[in-house]
Amino acid sequence: MVDTEHIQIAHGGGGQMTNELIEQVILPALGDASLQDPSGLTDAAVLTLWGGAASAGGRIAFTTDSYVVQPLEFPGADIGKLAICGTVNDLSVVGARPVALSLALVLEEGLEIALLRRVLESAGAAARDAGVKIATGDTKVVERGGVAGMIINTAGVGVPLEGAALGFANIRQGDKIVLSGPLGEHGMAVMSQRKGLSFRAELKSDCAALNGLTQALLAELGGAVRFMRDPTRGGLAATLVEVSTATGRDIEVDESAIPVNRTAKAAAEMLGLDLLTIANEGKLVAVVSSEAASAAVEIMRRNLLATRAAVVGTIGPANATPLVELVTNVGGRIVVQMPYGEELPRIC
Amino acid sequence: MVDTEHIQIAHGGGGQMTNELIEQVILPALGDASLQDPSGLTDAAVLTLWGGAASAGGRIAFTTDSYVVQPLEFPGADIGKLAICGTVNDLSVVGARPVALSLALVLEEGLEIALLRRVLESAGAAARDAGVKIATGDTKVVERGGVAGMIINTAGVGVPLEGAALGFANIRQGDKIVLSGPLGEHGMAVMSQRKGLSFRAELKSDCAALNGLTQALLAELGGAVRFMRDPTRGGLAATLVEVSTATGRDIEVDESAIPVNRTAKAAAEMLGLDLLTIANEGKLVAVVSSEAASAAVEIMRRNLLATRAAVVGTIGPANATPLVELVTNVGGRIVVQMPYGEELPRIC
Repeated sequence: MVDTEHIQIAHGGGGQMTNELIEQVILPALGDASLQDPSGLTDAAVLTLWGGAASAGGRIAFTTDSYVVQPLEFPGADIGKLAICGTVNDLSVVGARPVALSLALVLEEGLEIALLRRVLESAGAAARDAGVKIATGDTKVVERGGVAGMIINTAGVGVPLEGAALGFANIRQGDKIVLSGPLGEHGMAVMSQRKGLSFRAELKSDCAALNGLTQALLAELGGAVRFMRDPTRGGLAATLVEVSTATGRDIEVDESAIPVNRTAKAAAEMLGLDLLTIANEGKLVAVVSSEAASAAVEIMRRNLLATRAAVVGTIGPANATPLVELVTNVGGRIVVQMPYGEELPRIC
Repeated sequence: MVDTEHIQIAHGGGGQMTNELIEQVILPALGDASLQDPSGLTDAAVLTLWGGAASAGGRIAFTTDSYVVQPLEFPGADIGKLAICGTVNDLSVVGARPVALSLALVLEEGLEIALLRRVLESAGAAARDAGVKIATGDTKVVERGGVAGMIINTAGVGVPLEGAALGFANIRQGDKIVLSGPLGEHGMAVMSQRKGLSFRAELKSDCAALNGLTQALLAELGGAVRFMRDPTRGGLAATLVEVSTATGRDIEVDESAIPVNRTAKAAAEMLGLDLLTIANEGKLVAVVSSEAASAAVEIMRRNLLATRAAVVGTIGPANATPLVELVTNVGGRIVVQMPYGEELPRIC
């Protein structure tokens, strides 16, 4: 029997359970205090602080994420770098230039200050690399056992780029889905560290800031870029089902076109997981016009974060019950579903 | 022996230990990724997103706070209302009009959804009352024991008001310190709930949004308002010592002028606490010119949140070792010190 009266781990997975919690509990409780625009409560919001909506001035993008990853340090990154990159990416994929972040720490009594220092040095380096400033902060301490080491929240503000016209409404039949690289490296790096898997040294989180990549795409392709997303919790599967549901269109994905990291794949197989549903922290999914698809791949491949970018799928016709279908390596067809709950708690 | 290698509860108290952690660990680790302006990492920052610094457009105020209060519901408010009002207030006291907040939830597996709903309804009502929108959000779930029920982070953006000229640098000898009402109601309400004190029904948190109050003061008094602060962690003592240290000026406070809530006072005496150091969540401290002091009191008293506003102190001359002195009810003089650590963990 499903317990509908208490929060479950699955509510945090970024899949269907998370969406239900947001739509059935969080948004109704907040009422008209929340901006229930299409970006809902799950993404970076673009809002007008002053002046008319038409004026370029006064519009900002605004986003927030709390980071609860365990362990705090893992191959390729740590909670500090993750907290910077994750929020930079949320601003980047809505077509904004990230400008300033907040950094709020909830620390556990007894936390090693040397570890805190390493995490913050990592955050500082990530912010410098991404060209953003940490503008404001907060520090709370809770008793031993109150949190596992630390939780970090970063919120971010950015400036919407001129010429960006992103949104589900701009997606057309025939548009191509471009993926910047192999899937699942973040999730599998964290899991292999947690489980002590022997190949964990070979597997590094892809945690990286995507603002250079998104800005290059928008600058060169403008309105031919229809939609962008970094496939974090719920992975590529959640992103594509969301696009399909929001546009009412079928999507076809070609498994053989998806770049593969063999170590991540081996780790996923060992743990019985599907890489399509695993969190990435430095990958970009872009829906672009058919004409611009090869240019998009080329622009991405110039960037060190996306040397293996590829067209992996196509937006199909409108459908009353739109489906995401994966054409497998052997030519079969599998329906890709929204992950239900949480397979990997505390992954980001 | 003081343990300097691990985080202690006292690091979260908003006093000297918190300041040392920020100055000696957090800011150096972040390096030049942080905006080390006078607002440091502890307050709302005012930053320019685009255009020159001189243009009104492009300037925003930005702040963040994580809320870890226990219990989650307490007389007069709950963690949801607190998370809205606290961040609205941080924007208000730097002279900004709060516009939009983010709301990030870290929920514990097993949390009652009915409790979550109550807290969010309370947050929604507080946002409506304060005239701010919740623009973006995040929901994470951690395992049982991972947090105590929930932690909420809110970040906020606001628009700096024209004509506000706030800052330590504007404070002059002879300026008056105006306090909007009695001290310690929030801290004592939470503590009396926690300790099961018999009079807890009579004592309510003062948790409230101050933006109406700060905007009225700035609209009517303009540059005569030198500085504002909501005295949360560390209480009035921390606020006044900070003003004294930053301006290099003595401050004299008149105990007999400070409005008193008798129940809060009784609770503090029972628990051996000093109301000057206890957190408030709906009180305003304003430093105003001597000429504007009585007008400031009058403007405050028109507001239901500040019917007992009073002039409680005076900015004194510059001093190489500036002191805050309290002239007691019986005519003695006591030096008010920055609280060292945390007397009341998880109070906000």
